[in-house]
Amino acid sequence: MNKKYKEYVETLRKKADIDYAAAVLSWDKETYMPPKGAHFRSQQVATLSGISHEIFTDKKFGELLKSLNSNSNGLLEKEKRNVELSLKDYIRIEKLDTNFVIERSKVISTAYHAWLEARKANDFSIYTKALKKLVEIKREEASLIGYDQHPYDGLLDEFEPGMTVNKLDILFKDVKEQLVEFVNKIKSQPQVQNSFLKKFYPKDKQWTYGLQLLKNMGYDFEQGRQDVSPHPFTINFSPNDVRVTTRIDENDLANMVWSCIHEGGHALYEQGLSVEEYGLPLGSYLTVGVHESQSRLWENHIGRSLDYWKFNYPTLQDLFPDNLSPVSLEAFYKGINRVEPNLIRTESDELHYHFHIMIRYEIEKELIEGSIEVENLNQIWNDKYMDYLGVKVPDDNKGVLQDVHWAHGVFGYFPTYSIGSFYAAQLYQSVEREIPNLPKLIASGDNSQLLHWVRERIHQHGKQYNAEDLIEKITGESFNFKYFLDYCKRKYISIYEL
Amino acid sequence: MNKKYKEYVETLRKKADIDYAAAVLSWDKETYMPPKGAHFRSQQVATLSGISHEIFTDKKFGELLKSLNSNSNGLLEKEKRNVELSLKDYIRIEKLDTNFVIERSKVISTAYHAWLEARKANDFSIYTKALKKLVEIKREEASLIGYDQHPYDGLLDEFEPGMTVNKLDILFKDVKEQLVEFVNKIKSQPQVQNSFLKKFYPKDKQWTYGLQLLKNMGYDFEQGRQDVSPHPFTINFSPNDVRVTTRIDENDLANMVWSCIHEGGHALYEQGLSVEEYGLPLGSYLTVGVHESQSRLWENHIGRSLDYWKFNYPTLQDLFPDNLSPVSLEAFYKGINRVEPNLIRTESDELHYHFHIMIRYEIEKELIEGSIEVENLNQIWNDKYMDYLGVKVPDDNKGVLQDVHWAHGVFGYFPTYSIGSFYAAQLYQSVEREIPNLPKLIASGDNSQLLHWVRERIHQHGKQYNAEDLIEKITGESFNFKYFLDYCKRKYISIYEL
Repeated sequence: MNKKYKEYVETLRKKADIDYAAAVLSWDKETYMPPKGAHFRSQQVATLSGISHEIFTDKKFGELLKSLNSNSNGLLEKEKRNVELSLKDYIRIEKLDTNFVIERSKVISTAYHAWLEARKANDFSIYTKALKKLVEIKREEASLIGYDQHPYDGLLDEFEPGMTVNKLDILFKDVKEQLVEFVNKIKSQPQVQNSFLKKFYPKDKQWTYGLQLLKNMGYDFEQGRQDVSPHPFTINFSPNDVRVTTRIDENDLANMVWSCIHEGGHALYEQGLSVEEYGLPLGSYLTVGVHESQSRLWENHIGRSLDYWKFNYPTLQDLFPDNLSPVSLEAFYKGINRVEPNLIRTESDELHYHFHIMIRYEIEKELIEGSIEVENLNQIWNDKYMDYLGVKVPDDNKGVLQDVHWAHGVFGYFPTYSIGSFYAAQLYQSVEREIPNLPKLIASGDNSQLLHWVRERIHQHGKQYNAEDLIEKITGESFNFKYFLDYCKRKYISIYEL
Repeated sequence: MNKKYKEYVETLRKKADIDYAAAVLSWDKETYMPPKGAHFRSQQVATLSGISHEIFTDKKFGELLKSLNSNSNGLLEKEKRNVELSLKDYIRIEKLDTNFVIERSKVISTAYHAWLEARKANDFSIYTKALKKLVEIKREEASLIGYDQHPYDGLLDEFEPGMTVNKLDILFKDVKEQLVEFVNKIKSQPQVQNSFLKKFYPKDKQWTYGLQLLKNMGYDFEQGRQDVSPHPFTINFSPNDVRVTTRIDENDLANMVWSCIHEGGHALYEQGLSVEEYGLPLGSYLTVGVHESQSRLWENHIGRSLDYWKFNYPTLQDLFPDNLSPVSLEAFYKGINRVEPNLIRTESDELHYHFHIMIRYEIEKELIEGSIEVENLNQIWNDKYMDYLGVKVPDDNKGVLQDVHWAHGVFGYFPTYSIGSFYAAQLYQSVEREIPNLPKLIASGDNSQLLHWVRERIHQHGKQYNAEDLIEKITGESFNFKYFLDYCKRKYISIYEL
């Protein structure tokens, strides 16, 4: 191996060791840490983050990257790609000087605490001032990072490289026109019932069933585990230690079931990454949107399909006979796919979900370009919810204060949720074409061919290709919203007898 | 605060953050980590250890320590003490150059794997070569560290500063003469029964009971938690996050009960350390022996006392009525204090325990001084067990291969187990004097005054005093074995009706 490349690899692996150590500390914080451990834990994580940041932003490392990138003759293609991507990250971070980064941390920390206070009081006005500052510093960040057309592009690039306002505007125009029209058709039909999901489902049995679902998906418990946390998440410390969490609501079965499948989808991606490329771009997930495509593919295309429940429903009925023996497979399938506008993004059905995202996208974009003001944001929010979803927001907690993302300084992330779903639909269409007997396999509980397919086409490559190139390489076509709409039509026309 | 002292504090706190992060990773490894996570986990811990070592051995930090130590006018007494102790550590480590440290790691790693192999084959000869090398490098270490009288003193100093071969020889001479004589008297009496401990005790109930015991001791679950691991241990990530583990054998109640109390004693010490001195010597436990004194005090002086079980036995009986309702409190008390020579240190009663330690001490000392050879070690071991305990060692796994300590490169640690027990007896004698109604309190389940006493006299001081000075300050007398013997006599004369 090239000597300089070896040095590059060692530096990134050292950084990865530290980042993953910090991840273990975060996992523990969300799962097992006793309450009074929080203070020193935050300090410990901050120290590790600081060391990791120092390693990556070291000028000597920057020079090494630049030298490797411009004298890449002796490197293999994969090695070149690693260097190129690391250099891109380095240049992005280099643009933000230390004072800016410190200032940004302070502004975010203030905003987060103001958000918590505002949530407590259910009053957006408590958050206004801090959010205004936060938007200002994110605008400054966008301008430091640079962009071709729209300042929001500079922020998007962190989560979904290649994605721009231009592309998203076209995408969400389709969403608005075509999805709204389709959802309106559904609304005119008689509603399907899902009250059986809200009966009493004891914790222990739910837990056992969730583990079964994960196992059946192909999640490897030798390389992972599930625990309970307030908000479900997936976290990885190497491809050989990828953990998921879930939460259990004894009065709502849906909560646990689809969070298990969703996080399982994320986790399968991480378990499928290359061990050889540990710590390097090619050993990392491609984009946030592609990550989300993996969770959505399992959650919606598999986990809300009739075939999937042909196999899994009998065991679920056996486990909860009082609640489910009166409910036929067909009624169950319809109930878990009930479409209904609501106020809360995380509780949304898979169609209305994208209206929630569209609203956030529009607001983020307009905040960053400066065409709307933070002061009126709750009103803007509420108006959009009435306009797009037809629901009246009763208070700020159920409105503009519901997500933590902005309070964490995260702008440009929300669109990746929709992108991920749309990627998933396009990918799934290819899966179906290439594995013609997939419905039968899924209906018999055999998910191995599907797992093999996503492993081979997506997981193992890490960041080897750009997201849009990879989608095109796999599906033979550039990213296209129509596959999502096709999927929805095919599915909901039968459910709602349109 | 003095500017240089502030820099010193910040450096040590950064190191502490990293060390505690590594500790979280180790805790996770022993409790929840999925099996395949081991490879990258070891790498991550090694990276953190490397960074911590770099921080502490940085020449600039050494200069800072030396400068602070020689110009200590502006420092408070506590600050001086911190600097003095850190400098001592620094000088100790400075004596071992990098090549030596790397070589030692390799030798230890080889020895550890050879030990595992030897354990698997139940054959000491597989381990001989690697152990020989290990002893050689530990001898080299002792000579690099330096010592006044005996090379083993250089190794002892790492665990029990101030302890020497001279002192230990005197101590173990007392053990040999006085304890052997006393134990022989016990042997001549009819044996007490403990077969009730070996009945079936279901896991869940044992678990619940263990938590109760910890709570009753004063262990704060807001600043700690208990989990299950193959070998019980206590680990701390700050005084506000101190965790214990236990193991549960469904066919042996004793395993869980006294490991809970033992680890609880360790954990109370860590929870009682100063938060203000986080990361500094005064925020750390005094010596390994003093740490052990805290676990032994609770395990033996409290946890194997009649008064303690006056309070706790009824709930234990209620929990396991089939096993324990036929057993009177007195029979229970006698049974849990059964004295009987055996082969395995960790399964020993509190008297024979010190013969196990004495054997290890003699062997370690003689290996380091070069008066015995590794080749014959299993025979030497077996002869000593026959000589001191009157038991025949049937194979190497039940003999010289039973402990992992040497295979981890740890020589000079074993004596601290005995020292800890003897400290505990001397301390407990003072507790009894100063809290005259302690037996009544303990018998009523109130351990708060005892906890207050150890907190005030021992825990809060960290490394402020030397161990022997602290013992003298608290008890009014220098370290003396007679208190242990007195305690044993008082207790066992009644149990065995001598």
